[in-house]
Amino acid sequence: MNTFGRLFRVSIFGESHGDGVGIVIDGCPAGLDISKDDFAKDLERRKGGSRNTTARKEADIPMIKSGVFNGKSTGAPIMIFFENKEVDSSDYERIKNTPRPGHADLVAMQKFKGFNDYRGGGHFSGRLTVALVAAGVIAKKILNNVKIKAELMGQEIEELEGDSIGGIVECIVTGLPVGLGEPFFDSAESLLSHAAFSIPAIKGIEFGAGFACAKMRGSEFSDEIIDIKGTTKTNNAGGINGGITNGNELVFRVAVKPASSINKPMNTVDVKTKEQVSLETRGRHDACIALRVPVVLEAITAIVLADLMLIDQR
Amino acid sequence: MNTFGRLFRVSIFGESHGDGVGIVIDGCPAGLDISKDDFAKDLERRKGGSRNTTARKEADIPMIKSGVFNGKSTGAPIMIFFENKEVDSSDYERIKNTPRPGHADLVAMQKFKGFNDYRGGGHFSGRLTVALVAAGVIAKKILNNVKIKAELMGQEIEELEGDSIGGIVECIVTGLPVGLGEPFFDSAESLLSHAAFSIPAIKGIEFGAGFACAKMRGSEFSDEIIDIKGTTKTNNAGGINGGITNGNELVFRVAVKPASSINKPMNTVDVKTKEQVSLETRGRHDACIALRVPVVLEAITAIVLADLMLIDQR
Amino acid sequence: MNTFGRLFRVSIFGESHGDGVGIVIDGCPAGLDISKDDFAKDLERRKGGSRNTTARKEADIPMIKSGVFNGKSTGAPIMIFFENKEVDSSDYERIKNTPRPGHADLVAMQKFKGFNDYRGGGHFSGRLTVALVAAGVIAKKILNNVKIKAELMGQEIEELEGDSIGGIVECIVTGLPVGLGEPFFDSAESLLSHAAFSIPAIKGIEFGAGFACAKMRGSEFSDEIIDIKGTTKTNNAGGINGGITNGNELVFRVAVKPASSINKPMNTVDVKTKEQVSLETRGRHDACIALRVPVVLEAITAIVLADLMLIDQR
Amino acid sequence: MNTFGRLFRVSIFGESHGDGVGIVIDGCPAGLDISKDDFAKDLERRKGGSRNTTARKEADIPMIKSGVFNGKSTGAPIMIFFENKEVDSSDYERIKNTPRPGHADLVAMQKFKGFNDYRGGGHFSGRLTVALVAAGVIAKKILNNVKIKAELMGQEIEELEGDSIGGIVECIVTGLPVGLGEPFFDSAESLLSHAAFSIPAIKGIEFGAGFACAKMRGSEFSDEIIDIKGTTKTNNAGGINGGITNGNELVFRVAVKPASSINKPMNTVDVKTKEQVSLETRGRHDACIALRVPVVLEAITAIVLADLMLIDQR
Repeated sequence: MNTFGRLFRVSIFGESHGDGVGIVIDGCPAGLDISKDDFAKDLERRKGGSRNTTARKEADIPMIKSGVFNGKSTGAPIMIFFENKEVDSSDYERIKNTPRPGHADLVAMQKFKGFNDYRGGGHFSGRLTVALVAAGVIAKKILNNVKIKAELMGQEIEELEGDSIGGIVECIVTGLPVGLGEPFFDSAESLLSHAAFSIPAIKGIEFGAGFACAKMRGSEFSDEIIDIKGTTKTNNAGGINGGITNGNELVFRVAVKPASSINKPMNTVDVKTKEQVSLETRGRHDACIALRVPVVLEAITAIVLADLMLIDQR
Repeated sequence: MNTFGRLFRVSIFGESHGDGVGIVIDGCPAGLDISKDDFAKDLERRKGGSRNTTARKEADIPMIKSGVFNGKSTGAPIMIFFENKEVDSSDYERIKNTPRPGHADLVAMQKFKGFNDYRGGGHFSGRLTVALVAAGVIAKKILNNVKIKAELMGQEIEELEGDSIGGIVECIVTGLPVGLGEPFFDSAESLLSHAAFSIPAIKGIEFGAGFACAKMRGSEFSDEIIDIKGTTKTNNAGGINGGITNGNELVFRVAVKPASSINKPMNTVDVKTKEQVSLETRGRHDACIALRVPVVLEAITAIVLADLMLIDQR
Repeated sequence: MNTFGRLFRVSIFGESHGDGVGIVIDGCPAGLDISKDDFAKDLERRKGGSRNTTARKEADIPMIKSGVFNGKSTGAPIMIFFENKEVDSSDYERIKNTPRPGHADLVAMQKFKGFNDYRGGGHFSGRLTVALVAAGVIAKKILNNVKIKAELMGQEIEELEGDSIGGIVECIVTGLPVGLGEPFFDSAESLLSHAAFSIPAIKGIEFGAGFACAKMRGSEFSDEIIDIKGTTKTNNAGGINGGITNGNELVFRVAVKPASSINKPMNTVDVKTKEQVSLETRGRHDACIALRVPVVLEAITAIVLADLMLIDQR
Repeated sequence: MNTFGRLFRVSIFGESHGDGVGIVIDGCPAGLDISKDDFAKDLERRKGGSRNTTARKEADIPMIKSGVFNGKSTGAPIMIFFENKEVDSSDYERIKNTPRPGHADLVAMQKFKGFNDYRGGGHFSGRLTVALVAAGVIAKKILNNVKIKAELMGQEIEELEGDSIGGIVECIVTGLPVGLGEPFFDSAESLLSHAAFSIPAIKGIEFGAGFACAKMRGSEFSDEIIDIKGTTKTNNAGGINGGITNGNELVFRVAVKPASSINKPMNTVDVKTKEQVSLETRGRHDACIALRVPVVLEAITAIVLADLMLIDQR
């Protein structure tokens, strides 16, 4: 469903070309300073703005509709809404019957029996990440001494000629206490990956040494412990043992696929005529979605860790 | 926590060197044939038996304590218990104060204030995967026409000389319907990764092309659609678009770290003396945990998919 | 938290004197006809309008912000928002430090460390039931052949002279299938009572013969079965056996307390001076909240039953 | 489902005439003293023993299968199992096709398509309350300064001549902090009633003045506040305002129906012949289930409050 979290819980809604997108944040402690201005920096980071990102320009003004009073969180659910202003759906009518390769158009049509809002991907749109970022801003306020920093790894965006490219985003968290997460189904990795895969375009996640561990020996991989706090000499575990944070840096990476909308023709099927057709997704596209992902990844990381911190304080 | 699932829900418990381990399976439809013999094959696969796996030999007899009557599931919760018989905890007293590198010993001690059962990893032990496998056997019964097959990828286990090695396990699922999973927090990837990271030793997961997508162009990555069922020419998406199964093969891989217990000395800290010590984890070890992972990965995959299938039938 | 339901899930937010109140409805099947007009009747019933209800006159226009496209539910979360227009908070500043007897003012102040929105009860206000009613309208659409009817039982509202009075509201549901609910924690009674007690002012709930059963003999109470569908001669069970609907009428009643705001002075404490003071809650009050409860009770009943129906269809 | 709780979570399983019944308790803090002897008193209270209760004599020895090590909780899930020893299922074969009036026999048959374990009510049996009591014993350990006391209200059990009788059980909790519970769906009343209705035979619940409030005036019902801690002069609210505990005594009552099994013939239907038949449920019966309910009601109250206390400590 569209809800996540145990004590700090978010519920997301909205569509790319509808009235807007929003999020309800439940379980936020009372007394946090919250103002519209707090959101500006992260929202701006998400917008990107490089030549390689989409031309859709939304103001992204967070409308705080509940849960904040006199500039402070009240303890009641906080609802933040973002209006869609820059909507141009004309192109989508044209492609209504020709699901875009790589997009969720066809599965949405099938799962929701043709009633899905197909304009701009509808509820499946990357547009909804604006709401995740907003929730992340709140979550970061709960994580006082914790620093979360994500960035795109060494991507050189060459000339793409209308094509797109993927990327890998690494997230590093410092200042986390020992003990967050549970041994089995709510391991820190389980919760972080659960949330990370709710970001559109993520196709993989790895912690610490990650996939490289497959070729490593135990004598090389296992991190030697150098003090009783649990500091380790190396950090192949990425800051998690047995599903629990171990007090070292939390390190993980996600793989971001290349944008599916490109200015090149691709083959698909017309669901009316059942014939194969060539489709070019004209319009406003991201050449490299991965450029926008860091702030979104920070947001979902903050959402997960805020929940775990609140649980841990019991 | 130790519970997972919405309509098909499992709750795991137990310790490596306690009375045993078990699982409660709630939401299993009534009328499935269930007998002890059904579990033998998968339990045997988990045991391994190759020269590279541990010498601990448990009979692994599933004791079905509830929810089955006259050989059929009743619709009530099914509890399956495995007794621990071959327990030798002598070595663990020795290492009680010297947390093993790579293991959860130290975080368990810290999180649970020293009250954790430290013998053989206690609740954090790979021993608990026997309960996951049992639940997987039940889950597979719900997935009639669905085939799940996992295997270790091209691992050549050379001479390890007391050391251990990691591996990559790939899981392929055929026969899945279109439409399983939800757009945001309960995407198919979210749920599968959530469950996969509850398997001890997993450090990464990727779907379809996975991390390789980072270097791919959109024109290359996006899978062209070749018929109105949604069959795609390539399968870089790994069978999932927008968090929803698309009817193609579901393909994903997990990275398994090398076992932390090896017959080589490693440095750690004595929590009493606070001094650095060298520790050799004598005893019964897996040289390559990845050899045991395929059947466990199939099990958690079946658990997730059974839940999604039951949800989908609404 | 402010979320309820497994497959049909609602998340409520908002305050009495803030921007408005709203609800996110997740898990609504795609393809239902939904228009603003559908809400008018139930919203009007909630308003009351009798001489005994509050003078606050809100237009209660449902703003459907997501999840509906071309007049049909899309399968994505539906967010419905109601703006607060007729807000007059002047009186509340006066009583900010003098919690009203019978209200949640003091517990809200204590639980949320003084950061709660105290105006008109804030998030605790009966105003939020407008959002429950809206969700109920959607839920009723899922319950095709099921009829839910609640009404205030034989209340003669005499002259109250500024005082208020309680009431009992009975809810009867016909057309329910056999088999909804689970044996233990998710019994039909458990879920209905859980939801019913989220309606402000409810202090009791009973099913079938309810509290009268305490004085009954088994030979009198147990409903004789008269056909193999399970039709019973009497209905002391109220349509539920062992937590499961039995196909007979579902019958239950809730006790509604008298409104706490009355035009009579009552004693409370000034949290600043710590002295006892007499407080008269001037303003717009309901003399009999129970008059508004039937449509709200129908709404939460529909919400619970819609969830159970979707679960049952597996 | 058979799981309940957010941070302190129980999962129940078992049948009346199967191997036994049990419960998994997840989220129990580490370091609590737990021994078999701790359970004896409450288990004995549940057994009853008065002439008016059933003749089935189970030893009710709690078998702690996990989560306890060296006499202390470890923080891992605690599984407690009770074997069924005194099982005599001969009578049930006879009544297999004639569902007992007042029991769940017929709905179980219908919901689970005839695969339910019909012996002694199977999973629907009051036998499972032994597991609730065991979980309650653990929960009470978390509630240090909180006292929970439930008792049957003024029941004089006259000569019943093979018939049964209902009762009302009142529960009073002292020592609770202010602030437990949430404004909407997780109000203290919502959670307590949710859990209470999982006890077989409960047909109603009321808080404080309860149903009597229907005839009260607001000036009479609303509890005047006499100090800044929130102590009230009267306690018609039963210790809860706006879903949140207010620091006064928590007071509620449940209605317990008369046992459905009596030594008198009642009419039902033979599901094979579809004809009406007269059925006398010979065997071991409780004349007044309400005699056993107090300790079970205390248990579920403790389970709910332990969860709320752990949540509150964030």
